Amino acid sequence: MNFRLVFKVTGKTLLVEAFCLLLPLAVTLFYGEDPTPFLYTIAAIFVVGGALSFLPASDHFFAREGFFSVGLIWVLVSAFGALPFFFSGYFPSYVDCFFEAASGFTTTGASILPAVEGLPMGVLFWRSFTHWLGGMGVLILTIALLPSLGSRTLHLMKAESPGPVVSKLVPKTSQSSKILYGIYCALTLIQIICLKLTGMPWFDSVVNSFATAGTGGFSVKNASIGAYGSPAAEIIITIFMLLFSVNFALYFLLLCGKVRQVFQSDEFRFFLFIVAGSILLITLNLWLTGGYYATLGETVRHASFQVGTIISTTGFASTNFDLWPEFSRILLVLLMFVGACAGSTGGALKCSRVLVLLKCVRREVRQVVHPRSVNVVKLDGKVVPEETLRSILLFFFAYMFITAASTLVVALDNFSFGTTLTAVVACIGNIGPGLELVGPMGNYAGFSCLSKIVLSMCMIVGRLELLPILVLFSRNAWKRS
Amino acid sequence: MNFRLVFKVTGKTLLVEAFCLLLPLAVTLFYGEDPTPFLYTIAAIFVVGGALSFLPASDHFFAREGFFSVGLIWVLVSAFGALPFFFSGYFPSYVDCFFEAASGFTTTGASILPAVEGLPMGVLFWRSFTHWLGGMGVLILTIALLPSLGSRTLHLMKAESPGPVVSKLVPKTSQSSKILYGIYCALTLIQIICLKLTGMPWFDSVVNSFATAGTGGFSVKNASIGAYGSPAAEIIITIFMLLFSVNFALYFLLLCGKVRQVFQSDEFRFFLFIVAGSILLITLNLWLTGGYYATLGETVRHASFQVGTIISTTGFASTNFDLWPEFSRILLVLLMFVGACAGSTGGALKCSRVLVLLKCVRREVRQVVHPRSVNVVKLDGKVVPEETLRSILLFFFAYMFITAASTLVVALDNFSFGTTLTAVVACIGNIGPGLELVGPMGNYAGFSCLSKIVLSMCMIVGRLELLPILVLFSRNAWKRS
Repeated sequence: MNFRLVFKVTGKTLLVEAFCLLLPLAVTLFYGEDPTPFLYTIAAIFVVGGALSFLPASDHFFAREGFFSVGLIWVLVSAFGALPFFFSGYFPSYVDCFFEAASGFTTTGASILPAVEGLPMGVLFWRSFTHWLGGMGVLILTIALLPSLGSRTLHLMKAESPGPVVSKLVPKTSQSSKILYGIYCALTLIQIICLKLTGMPWFDSVVNSFATAGTGGFSVKNASIGAYGSPAAEIIITIFMLLFSVNFALYFLLLCGKVRQVFQSDEFRFFLFIVAGSILLITLNLWLTGGYYATLGETVRHASFQVGTIISTTGFASTNFDLWPEFSRILLVLLMFVGACAGSTGGALKCSRVLVLLKCVRREVRQVVHPRSVNVVKLDGKVVPEETLRSILLFFFAYMFITAASTLVVALDNFSFGTTLTAVVACIGNIGPGLELVGPMGNYAGFSCLSKIVLSMCMIVGRLELLPILVLFSRNAWKRS
Repeated sequence: MNFRLVFKVTGKTLLVEAFCLLLPLAVTLFYGEDPTPFLYTIAAIFVVGGALSFLPASDHFFAREGFFSVGLIWVLVSAFGALPFFFSGYFPSYVDCFFEAASGFTTTGASILPAVEGLPMGVLFWRSFTHWLGGMGVLILTIALLPSLGSRTLHLMKAESPGPVVSKLVPKTSQSSKILYGIYCALTLIQIICLKLTGMPWFDSVVNSFATAGTGGFSVKNASIGAYGSPAAEIIITIFMLLFSVNFALYFLLLCGKVRQVFQSDEFRFFLFIVAGSILLITLNLWLTGGYYATLGETVRHASFQVGTIISTTGFASTNFDLWPEFSRILLVLLMFVGACAGSTGGALKCSRVLVLLKCVRREVRQVVHPRSVNVVKLDGKVVPEETLRSILLFFFAYMFITAASTLVVALDNFSFGTTLTAVVACIGNIGPGLELVGPMGNYAGFSCLSKIVLSMCMIVGRLELLPILVLFSRNAWKRS
C-alpha cells in the first residue's frame, strides 16, 4: 500500500473542504452570527490538509490505493466537517457531531437533534450544504471516475451501473464530470426557484433544495417539510426527489435528444413501476383503512411524498408515516432496501441491482423447466456478463450481512426490535428516518456512543457501496508495500 | 411436463402416508378414543392415492418433473394430513388444519392452537409424528436422492451440501437411504430412552423425541418443554437438538471410524463456533443485564436450550425468550436465518451456505488488496466451483426476496412490525416461534386465512429449498410437453 500517495490525495480533498466552508462562513457573517466555529475549522483543516498534500509520493496508484483513499477521505471529511457543529456548542458531544456530519456527507439525513429550529443559520446552512457536497461527490465518484478506471478489481463498483454510463458517452473523464456538475447545479437552481415561488423563504428554499439534490433529508424545521403546510411545496419536492433518483446519464441522453433511449432503459422503467405501484398500494391501504386523511387527494399526496422520499433515500417527512397501518410501514421499509437508480445521488441497493437479481431468479426457474434452452440475463437488450451477476449477488449478501451485524451491536442499547432494525436499515441505505423511535418525528439522540459510531460507519459503508470500507478494515491492506 | 408420471409418483407417496396413519390410529384405539377421524382420512387418501398411482404413464422423468413432484407431494401430503385434525373437530377451520399439518411435515412447529393439553392423544401423536415423517422425508430427499441425480439443472439443490454427502460414500441410493433410516431411528430411540430415564411419561418421551428428531418443535404441553420443570430433560433435549442439526453424513463417517475427518469438516466447525459463541454472548447479556435467572448455571442452561432450539430450527421453549433483552432476541432472530447444517433435518439457509457466503466476501476484499493473487473459495480443503458459489448467492437472494414479499402480505393483518416479520422468518426457516405475538408463549391463531396460507407456503418453500415451489408457480411448467 502506497500510504504517502493515499495521504496526499486525502490532504488535497481536505483542502477542497476548507474552501467549501467559506460559503457557510459567509452565511454566518451575513446573519451577524459568531464566525469562530467556521474560522477554527478552516484553520484546522488547512493545517492538516496542507501538510498531507505536500507529502512527497510516488505515482503508484492501484485499485487498493483507490479504495483505501475513498474510504479514508469520507471518514476524514466527516471528522473535520463535524468541527463547526462541535465548536458551535449546540451539540452534546463530538461523537454526535461526527454522526451529524457523516449523516450529512453521506446524504443520509439522520439527526441526533431533537429540535433544529434554535440553531444558528450558519450551522443549519452547513448541515444542508454537506448533503449537496456529498451528493456531488458521489456522482463524480460513481459515474465519472470509477467506470473510467475499468480495472478488473473493481467488480463491486462496476456492478453498480450496468445501464448507460456518462463516461462512455463522452471521451474524457473531465468532460463527463463537467456535464454532471452542470446538470446537478441546474436542477438545484430550478428547484430553488420553484420552491421560492410557493412562498417559501429564500434561505429555506436553498437549504431544502440542497437536501433534495443530495437526496439527504436534513430539514431546518422540526416537522420537516410538513412544517410549511404547503401542498405545492410538497408536490415540487416530491417531483425533484424523484428527478434526483434517476441515473444522471439519462439526462445526458435527454440533452442529446435521445428521448426514446431514455424510456427504453430497463432500470428507469423498473423504477417508475415500483414508484407507481407503491403509491397505489399505500393509497389503497390508507384509504380503505380509513381515518388518516380527509380527502383522496390528500392521501395520494402524502403517499407519493413518502414513497418518493424513501425510494430516493432522501428522508424528508410531510406526515408521520410511523402511524400508518403496518402494510404501508413495511412497504416503506422494503423500499429502504431498494433505493434509487444507479448513477444518481440516492443510496441503498439500487434499482438496477434489484432488477438484475430478480431476473437471475427467473432464469433459474426457467432453467429447470427448459434445461436445454440458452438462458442469459439481459439489461437494456444487452447480455449482463456472469461475472457482473456474481458481483451483484455478492453485493446483496454483503449488504445484508453488514446490516445484520450492525443491528446486533445497536441492539445492545435495548431499544425495540423495530427501532433497532430500521435505524440500521435507514443508515446503511442513506435514508434517515426509520420506524418507531427513529421515525420521521423521532431522532437518533437516544443511542449510545458505540451505536452512533456503528451507525455512522453504516452510512459511510452504504454510501461507498461497501468495498472501500471493507478494504479499510482488511488486515492485509495495512501492510506496507 | 409429464403430468401423468407426476401424479403417479404423488399417488404412491400418498399411499405411504395412508400406511403411516395406521400408527396414530393404533394410539387412538389404545387410549380408547374415537377412531373415525383417522379412518375417514385413511379411506380418503386410499381412494385418491390409489386412483393416481394406477395412472398409466411413460417413464420420461426429467428435473422439472422431479421438482414439480416434490412440490406437489409436500402440498398434497399436508392437505391430506390435515384431515384428521379437521375431522377431530378441535380446530376452527380447514385452513387452520392445513397450517398445522404443513407446519408438522415441514418440521416447522408453528401452531395455531392456543392450548394443546385438551386434545385427544391420537391427534397429539399424529401432530408430532408428522415431524418425524417430515424429517425423514427431507433426509431421504436431500441426502440420498437428489445428489445421486446429479443433473446440471439441480443448481440450487446441489448447492446445499458442498460437504460430505452420503450418496458419495456408498455406491447405491437405496443403500444410503437405508443407512440414513438406521441412524435416524437409532438416535430417536436413544433419545426416547434418555427422556424416559428423567421421569418423563412414555407418551411424552416418544412425541418429544419425534419433534426433536425432525427438528420440528410441536409439544404436547402448553408451556412446551418448560412445563416438565426438569433441567435433566432440558439438557438432554438440547443435546439431541444439536445432534439432529449435524450433517448425517458425519455420523456415517463416525461409524466408519473416520473421527478425524468429522472434526475437519469446515461446516461442522463453523456450526460449533456459532453455537458456542451465541451461548456465550446470550449468557453474558442475560447475566450482565441481571434479573433473569437466579444462578449462572440456570442462565447457561436456558441460553444453551434456546440457541439449540433456534439454530436447529426446532422451536421448543424452556423459557419465554421474548422477554429477554433486545440483544439476545435479535441474536436469536439472526440464528433463525442461519439454521442447521446441510444434510440434517434442520431448515433455514444452512451453515455451509452462510460459511461459503462469508468466504466469498473475504475473497472479494482480498482481490482488491492483492489483485494478482489467485483467489478461490475452499471448503474442506476443496475448491468450490464458481457455479456453486453463484447458486448459493442466488439462493440467499431468493430466500430474502420470498421473506420480504411474504412479510408484505402478512402485514395486511396489521400486527406489529416484530410479529409480522418474525412470523415469516420463523415459518420460512422452519423454526416455529418468532417474537412478540408469535413468541414461544404465543401462537399463530390470530392471523387471517390469507396469512395462514401464505405462511404455510413459506414453510413448504423453506423446507424444499425454494426451487420446487417456484417451479410449481412457473407458468411454463404447466404447459403440456
